[in-house]
Amino acid sequence: MSITQKETIKRSVEQESDNNWRDVLYDVIFKADTVPGKSFDVALIVIIALSVITVIINTVDTIDQKYGHFLHMAELVFTVIFTIEYILRLICCRRPVAYAKSFFGVVDLFSILPTYISVFLPSSHVLAVVRIIRVLRIFRVLKLVKYVGESELLIDALRSSRRKITVFLFSVITIVIIFGSVMYIVETPENGFTNIPQSIYWAVVTLTTVGYGDMTPQTHIGKVLSMVIMVMGYGIIAVPTGIVTAEMTKAMRHHNKVSSNVCEGCGYRWHDDDAHYCKHCGNSL
Amino acid sequence: MSITQKETIKRSVEQESDNNWRDVLYDVIFKADTVPGKSFDVALIVIIALSVITVIINTVDTIDQKYGHFLHMAELVFTVIFTIEYILRLICCRRPVAYAKSFFGVVDLFSILPTYISVFLPSSHVLAVVRIIRVLRIFRVLKLVKYVGESELLIDALRSSRRKITVFLFSVITIVIIFGSVMYIVETPENGFTNIPQSIYWAVVTLTTVGYGDMTPQTHIGKVLSMVIMVMGYGIIAVPTGIVTAEMTKAMRHHNKVSSNVCEGCGYRWHDDDAHYCKHCGNSL
Amino acid sequence: MSITQKETIKRSVEQESDNNWRDVLYDVIFKADTVPGKSFDVALIVIIALSVITVIINTVDTIDQKYGHFLHMAELVFTVIFTIEYILRLICCRRPVAYAKSFFGVVDLFSILPTYISVFLPSSHVLAVVRIIRVLRIFRVLKLVKYVGESELLIDALRSSRRKITVFLFSVITIVIIFGSVMYIVETPENGFTNIPQSIYWAVVTLTTVGYGDMTPQTHIGKVLSMVIMVMGYGIIAVPTGIVTAEMTKAMRHHNKVSSNVCEGCGYRWHDDDAHYCKHCGNSL
Amino acid sequence: MSITQKETIKRSVEQESDNNWRDVLYDVIFKADTVPGKSFDVALIVIIALSVITVIINTVDTIDQKYGHFLHMAELVFTVIFTIEYILRLICCRRPVAYAKSFFGVVDLFSILPTYISVFLPSSHVLAVVRIIRVLRIFRVLKLVKYVGESELLIDALRSSRRKITVFLFSVITIVIIFGSVMYIVETPENGFTNIPQSIYWAVVTLTTVGYGDMTPQTHIGKVLSMVIMVMGYGIIAVPTGIVTAEMTKAMRHHNKVSSNVCEGCGYRWHDDDAHYCKHCGNSL
Repeated sequence: MSITQKETIKRSVEQESDNNWRDVLYDVIFKADTVPGKSFDVALIVIIALSVITVIINTVDTIDQKYGHFLHMAELVFTVIFTIEYILRLICCRRPVAYAKSFFGVVDLFSILPTYISVFLPSSHVLAVVRIIRVLRIFRVLKLVKYVGESELLIDALRSSRRKITVFLFSVITIVIIFGSVMYIVETPENGFTNIPQSIYWAVVTLTTVGYGDMTPQTHIGKVLSMVIMVMGYGIIAVPTGIVTAEMTKAMRHHNKVSSNVCEGCGYRWHDDDAHYCKHCGNSL
Repeated sequence: MSITQKETIKRSVEQESDNNWRDVLYDVIFKADTVPGKSFDVALIVIIALSVITVIINTVDTIDQKYGHFLHMAELVFTVIFTIEYILRLICCRRPVAYAKSFFGVVDLFSILPTYISVFLPSSHVLAVVRIIRVLRIFRVLKLVKYVGESELLIDALRSSRRKITVFLFSVITIVIIFGSVMYIVETPENGFTNIPQSIYWAVVTLTTVGYGDMTPQTHIGKVLSMVIMVMGYGIIAVPTGIVTAEMTKAMRHHNKVSSNVCEGCGYRWHDDDAHYCKHCGNSL
Repeated sequence: MSITQKETIKRSVEQESDNNWRDVLYDVIFKADTVPGKSFDVALIVIIALSVITVIINTVDTIDQKYGHFLHMAELVFTVIFTIEYILRLICCRRPVAYAKSFFGVVDLFSILPTYISVFLPSSHVLAVVRIIRVLRIFRVLKLVKYVGESELLIDALRSSRRKITVFLFSVITIVIIFGSVMYIVETPENGFTNIPQSIYWAVVTLTTVGYGDMTPQTHIGKVLSMVIMVMGYGIIAVPTGIVTAEMTKAMRHHNKVSSNVCEGCGYRWHDDDAHYCKHCGNSL
Repeated sequence: MSITQKETIKRSVEQESDNNWRDVLYDVIFKADTVPGKSFDVALIVIIALSVITVIINTVDTIDQKYGHFLHMAELVFTVIFTIEYILRLICCRRPVAYAKSFFGVVDLFSILPTYISVFLPSSHVLAVVRIIRVLRIFRVLKLVKYVGESELLIDALRSSRRKITVFLFSVITIVIIFGSVMYIVETPENGFTNIPQSIYWAVVTLTTVGYGDMTPQTHIGKVLSMVIMVMGYGIIAVPTGIVTAEMTKAMRHHNKVSSNVCEGCGYRWHDDDAHYCKHCGNSL
């Protein structure tokens, strides 16, 4: 017990230097404004990209037969690197449980777990499942999104048109349900429209102008209805475009105002091109 | 006869209290600004959604074999609920005949009738027809449209570009008729273009870039004509997009400006929402 | 001879009344601002629409077998009507040869000629050809275009973006030729890319996102190239849309200015919303 | 040796007149603002177009059998012309090596080399390879791009939205990788999704709404996922359109306003092209 007490004391003593060490580590791993932080990010991007490529080409039989051994080695190396990264993130994070429960925490865990299972439980049945779960490592690619500049502008435009996009999606779903159901009645299961979910799948394929051709209308009424839904889809494509374009034009106009002259009275900078007086303090520009 | 007279009197006496009762019911069913009215709407949305899902999955054979009994029960329950709703609407509506003749009145009736027919006329031949009509209940999903916010903005944009969309649709129909007819001559019935309506169907499938592939040009001239119609369709898609985007940009600009007040100094009215001073003359707003 | 002289005199006498008669006829046939002119146009629209529908459904075998006799009768009636119209147009037109040589003059002639040939030269071989040419009557549908309102706005937008659309079309053709040729080398004739024109057809089908599926890449490199052209097509679709939208926004802004106040000094009416002085004469508004 | 010295002297003497000759040639070949320069360009455009058409139709078997001899002759003529052009360009260019290494230099060389190889090394095996490389002559079509007016406006709009298009492409790649991998797990190789690259190919075909139909989802979950990616693709198409439209609107507005002059009275600068008086202060412009 005294040993435990001692350890506790020792820990609290080490806490400060430990904290400093953790703070530095936190800056390197979670931030990107220092030189080591940036290097860490670049290294991570490269490793994630390589690991994603490994997962992708590993599923090609001919490549697996030729370079299977090399890919297996690479996978082990990536797993070790990702394990170290995962542990470091858990250590230096202030709330490790919150990180572990977050989307990227789960993805990080899932991208290392399967390899360990395949090493420690080498039964063939487990391996088949593991082989599949391992592919989920691909979600790590989402980590790269935050490194891409200007994505904020796009995300902002999408976010501010969020409600309109909901309305649009709701319209699409309504159209698809109604046309799917009517086509199920019109075409009957003999022509491939075996049930309403299948018909709805056809309606989505048609409305979005994908048009696989695995299900096509056979009856005359079915063909007429298809034409209606096609032209409708052709017109509906205009709606999200209109929304995003309008939002984007607005966002860009705001963005452009940055360069215009600053008001000397209040420091406001987002004046319109034709403004003679500051709209906030009434100062002459 | 005296009994009938008595009844008439009794009715006119009851009229007033009855009217109050009907007014309350009317507010609950047709309006949404009171607490019971809102609760009624939410409950109706949930029931309609559930009933639509029931209709959809009921057509899947595997699900029908497993949960057919349960789905049949659910259908009866939904029918009873919709029957009560239909009767209540008829009672509290000031002009029941107008409601019964309206689009939603007919849909409401058609979504309850088939089940009753299948209960009271259980002949197998009638059942087959009823099974099909029952699917029309799906049109009830349109009732949900009015609960979606911001749909006015979209509908407004579509309405104000109504005439331009007509012009666009007319152009599409003209192009499709002419290309369909020419392709019928060029490809001949041997290559699947059996008649002009079929050729028009092909032209719509191609112009809208759906491209099922169930009919494809086989001759050289046919392929050249297809290329022309494809690039044309590719360009025509720009027209509705342009219309809706232009209308939307206008609507959004208008929406942003409507709230502003007129400057007393210079009469300028298109101030931004956050303007405190007129940007033209510097007057306080 | 004296008879001829007499006739000539008679003619020159009749000339004036004849001219009046021709002027009235001209107003009725070629203009639409009088009551008889409008009635003539409406009647012509209905007859053309009916005749186009007759041509279309006449190619459907089942309908032809059932109502063939009736459709044949209708065709004769339409031919007689169109013949009268054609002759009237030739008579009242100031330059009949110019009309006869114009696009619609040729279409008008071609829509009556085949029926007469089939009546006077009833050999089966000629009939087969006539049956095909008769379909060209469908081009009469283009006559309806000028009766559709607001088409000027669309046509204006297209015309003012004419040069940009040329650039766009040229880019599409260049991309399609290069990708088609490269795919011909990559896929080889064994995989269906039998020659470069075929490959170009495939490239157009892919770039415009039609995607029939009658020709698909089979090799690995071919699939990678296909992905490039698909994403490219996805992006290129933005260009005509951008052009038309930008033109349309400009056109609509001009169009909106109509409602603004008229300058008292010079009568100019197309002022901007924020104009305080007329930009043409400097008058205060 | 003295002969060589003499030659060197002779050369340096000729240098000046030679330089003049080279300068004139340079103006004719590389510039287009003189009459001979323009004629040279027009002639080159025609010859390139003819040669591209020759390459294209030469791959059609039926045409090759009929007109093969004539096409072979035409090819020799084009090769000679292009050889002269290539040599002239090398001579009059100030830095011949830089030209030879440039994209068009390589294309120019590759469009003449194969014919010479087939003439001097007429072994059947080499011929097969040469036949393929000869098709690359088609890249010469890119030379025509610079002769198309207004392409600058388009290229400018694309260039200024370069970074946003990168973000968009990155999003597309991310979506395609994730959906491709998930579909590989869901559909399994039995349904045609043999490996992840194949699945990614399917995802691109679906997201861009091309929809060949050579690979289609067979399982229920696969179809649901397909519907998600289709609607997503339908929505994502809005993003590049929005970007290009917004850039284009800006470019066009800028283009229209650039020519205007500043009002001396109030300093307002964004006058319309047809403004004679400032719309803000009424000052004469």
